[in-house]
Amino acid sequence: MSVTKPFLKLTYEGANKALQAAVRKAEEIGAPQCITIVDDGGNLMAFARMDGSKTLSIQTSMHKALTSASHRMPSNKVNPDLAPKFAVATGGKVTNLAGGLPIVIDGHTVGAVGVGSGSPEEDIAVAKAALTEIGATDPLS
Amino acid sequence: MSVTKPFLKLTYEGANKALQAAVRKAEEIGAPQCITIVDDGGNLMAFARMDGSKTLSIQTSMHKALTSASHRMPSNKVNPDLAPKFAVATGGKVTNLAGGLPIVIDGHTVGAVGVGSGSPEEDIAVAKAALTEIGATDPLS
Amino acid sequence: MSVTKPFLKLTYEGANKALQAAVRKAEEIGAPQCITIVDDGGNLMAFARMDGSKTLSIQTSMHKALTSASHRMPSNKVNPDLAPKFAVATGGKVTNLAGGLPIVIDGHTVGAVGVGSGSPEEDIAVAKAALTEIGATDPLS
Amino acid sequence: MSVTKPFLKLTYEGANKALQAAVRKAEEIGAPQCITIVDDGGNLMAFARMDGSKTLSIQTSMHKALTSASHRMPSNKVNPDLAPKFAVATGGKVTNLAGGLPIVIDGHTVGAVGVGSGSPEEDIAVAKAALTEIGATDPLS
Repeated sequence: MSVTKPFLKLTYEGANKALQAAVRKAEEIGAPQCITIVDDGGNLMAFARMDGSKTLSIQTSMHKALTSASHRMPSNKVNPDLAPKFAVATGGKVTNLAGGLPIVIDGHTVGAVGVGSGSPEEDIAVAKAALTEIGATDPLS
Repeated sequence: MSVTKPFLKLTYEGANKALQAAVRKAEEIGAPQCITIVDDGGNLMAFARMDGSKTLSIQTSMHKALTSASHRMPSNKVNPDLAPKFAVATGGKVTNLAGGLPIVIDGHTVGAVGVGSGSPEEDIAVAKAALTEIGATDPLS
Repeated sequence: MSVTKPFLKLTYEGANKALQAAVRKAEEIGAPQCITIVDDGGNLMAFARMDGSKTLSIQTSMHKALTSASHRMPSNKVNPDLAPKFAVATGGKVTNLAGGLPIVIDGHTVGAVGVGSGSPEEDIAVAKAALTEIGATDPLS
Repeated sequence: MSVTKPFLKLTYEGANKALQAAVRKAEEIGAPQCITIVDDGGNLMAFARMDGSKTLSIQTSMHKALTSASHRMPSNKVNPDLAPKFAVATGGKVTNLAGGLPIVIDGHTVGAVGVGSGSPEEDIAVAKAALTEIGATDPLS
């Protein structure tokens, strides 16, 4: 029984390192992206909108990240039968679009990355590059 | 014909008693939840976000409670054909996600409970525990 | 240089313990209150609206808590010259109304409490009771 | 008379270079900040929330940047008599809080930087570091 429990907090340095790795991956595969990093509570930490990405993907990348931070799972794993209802009930914040991945380090979900503008496969590949760079657990393996 | 009519008002004591019973039920079944209690006007009375529940379920649990207080029925009984239109027209406040139940005492809908983060069955079970604790009518029977 | 840093997370048990102590203090001084507990990221953890408190204090208590969690200081310490501009720029979330206190444990701001419906002195007294109950640092001493 | 006119567009590379220079300046002066870079249309390009900055400054830094991109001037130069009315009319997007500066290159306002969490002087110093790094005109000189 306890008032607090130990936790890890993602640093800005960690968030930025993950973000820049995602940008490099997106350049490598030729898929310009909007990339969002949020902390465990869903608050924005770092963001990049690459040249050629879609303006409205600012928002989808954010909602993918929010979903993964909240649900502690890949955004595309949200139950497809309930996803439309969740989306409407949360002002679009819960989405089951692919491209959101939780950032899990030492068993703690310290945040999430959300990627939007490419194909589902491209979005996931770029999100995974962010995780790999900072030694986060692969949530899709 | 009369200017007023007798009503019952849910007390904070009643709301908190219902809330804590719901928390215990969620612990018992191992499904951490966000739990909202609102009064007959939809105003927040008591709230709990349990460790391990989803952050975005703060909002879904609130909207489930709002729906049940407003419609005086379980949220999942909202007409599925109209639910998407109601949802959009109310900024997501009307939802037919399962987990919202009206709190009916002596025939008066004095408030509602909304539960989110588990499966539909878990959400309903936890909401029912809140009702049972304070002697409210079972709206699903 | 590090991707993460150690942190403490307020548990629901801690949040509820703080909340209930605040409710008891409010009863003791005869000042019914709305009381909000948020985590370090400003997400709602626990809430109580006592009988006789003001309905619109639901929101002020939340904004006081948000301000203290974000600024890591008592809400009434926000610069009075800038407070109106901050308030407008954040949709009212930053407030320098008295009654918000950060919850600091072992040097970590793990959340905040916001209290509204009483006089500034009553709001602060009730917020302090929440902190004392869980061994948090007194931010006003 | 012409259907189009030449314009310059800020690249992500330029936005990120400005952002990282601002982060370094904030570290140098010991004032952790939220830093937003937007393009000429006010759309988010790059963002950083440094450890120790205020969570609610995510929003104020964005609104400062929006104001400077829209008005093509430092946010603190918005007419103080009209600022409260502009703020309310735009949902808080127009602010005359200090810390927003337009990014002007070769006479084109290609975007803006918004900085929040420090004192007005610190916010401006960090915003200026972003401009200097990419050879933008000093809008305060």
